[in-house]
Amino acid sequence: MTGRLYGIGLGPGDPELLTIKALRLIQAAPVVSYFAKAGRRGNARGIVDPWLTGAAIEVPLHYPMTTEHAFDSPVYVSVLAEFYEKAVASLSTHLDAGRDVALLAEGDPLFYGSFMHLYVRLRERFACEIVPGVTGMAGCSAAAGAPMTWGDDVLTVLPGTLPFAALVDKLKASDAAVVMKLGGNFAKVRLAFEEAGLLDRALYVERGTMARERVSPLKDKPEGPAPYFSLILLPGQGRRP
Amino acid sequence: MTGRLYGIGLGPGDPELLTIKALRLIQAAPVVSYFAKAGRRGNARGIVDPWLTGAAIEVPLHYPMTTEHAFDSPVYVSVLAEFYEKAVASLSTHLDAGRDVALLAEGDPLFYGSFMHLYVRLRERFACEIVPGVTGMAGCSAAAGAPMTWGDDVLTVLPGTLPFAALVDKLKASDAAVVMKLGGNFAKVRLAFEEAGLLDRALYVERGTMARERVSPLKDKPEGPAPYFSLILLPGQGRRP
Repeated sequence: MTGRLYGIGLGPGDPELLTIKALRLIQAAPVVSYFAKAGRRGNARGIVDPWLTGAAIEVPLHYPMTTEHAFDSPVYVSVLAEFYEKAVASLSTHLDAGRDVALLAEGDPLFYGSFMHLYVRLRERFACEIVPGVTGMAGCSAAAGAPMTWGDDVLTVLPGTLPFAALVDKLKASDAAVVMKLGGNFAKVRLAFEEAGLLDRALYVERGTMARERVSPLKDKPEGPAPYFSLILLPGQGRRP
Repeated sequence: MTGRLYGIGLGPGDPELLTIKALRLIQAAPVVSYFAKAGRRGNARGIVDPWLTGAAIEVPLHYPMTTEHAFDSPVYVSVLAEFYEKAVASLSTHLDAGRDVALLAEGDPLFYGSFMHLYVRLRERFACEIVPGVTGMAGCSAAAGAPMTWGDDVLTVLPGTLPFAALVDKLKASDAAVVMKLGGNFAKVRLAFEEAGLLDRALYVERGTMARERVSPLKDKPEGPAPYFSLILLPGQGRRP
């Protein structure tokens, strides 16, 4: 009997925003695995820290250093593909030995993120189950107290990595929007909101649901890059009796 | 001292997909309130059934019968506004008396749904806190094992209530999409997927994460309306090393 892979959504950052099911499976799993930057413990490991019992084998998966390569360069793609293959081999050893693996994913496992790259490779050989999680988007709108979609509002989720013109067009065509993956794209994204005439309606949320959470109008966010746990919300204004 | 309003996301349907925080607050609240169709217990009440201790005062909020009115008719709007005002009055009595109220919301409280209509009215007078939840969308993609967004994919969330032409245009412009609020709109939405050339990529999910869950290619869903807990997923196909 081979083990089962659980893809477990951890939610937006507050450890209490794990689901009851996620907690049960993490505490029962003989192997707990998570992604982390080289030399770091990683955000996922931090979120589950209050819940781990110490009984599980931990398998950290350390990302290779790729900052010197563009996202669409062949080198980046091949370095990342090799990393995923190694991670698959590492987890397969446990699964082949009959040990269930809880593979942690910040937010929801099937909404962006690295988990999916291992999932599509491992599900060919092993039984898998996905435990959905609260997205960073939902965590940040809760932190801001900002209702996102009303009535017939259309919501668009945009990666900040898109080109400027595409961001402007998509924002103009949306009733409500969320922009993820800000980082070094922040200045471009802010300008896109301005160009679309939506700067005054947008909110900037940093570390939503976590310690040092910060919510402000987008126009008041100081210049400079945005941290990993940050996004921009454009709340909808649809039908409300 | 007045009470505090908690807007609590219940997740997509499986009672184990409540967050740990939601469970703690629901079990501590002196008043638990939820929406329900007239004469029914309601889906929200069903989801928390395994967790209620019997200690709380329950305040069901029964929707008025509105099926005979169009969504955008003045009669519908006024009947619904009156219902919300009555609900606000009912919850205010408890909050004014210093009792915290846990107001339940299926999925996430700030992502469509009735909770927001009470929230924007009550937050003027009472302290409020939102507990984000797992969306129906995340629950259904987990049920389908369908990764939704990769790399730079743009995701569009569409209400099935939109006109046919708008659905077709929005679907064509999306890398990934979710269509909610199917019900009697199902035939129109299915046709929009066909017109956009996307019928073969779409999945239909009914009662995701619940008993009698059902996942199928959209093209295999039999004709007829779709139940309340159903949606259509168009998984993205973006960058994947």
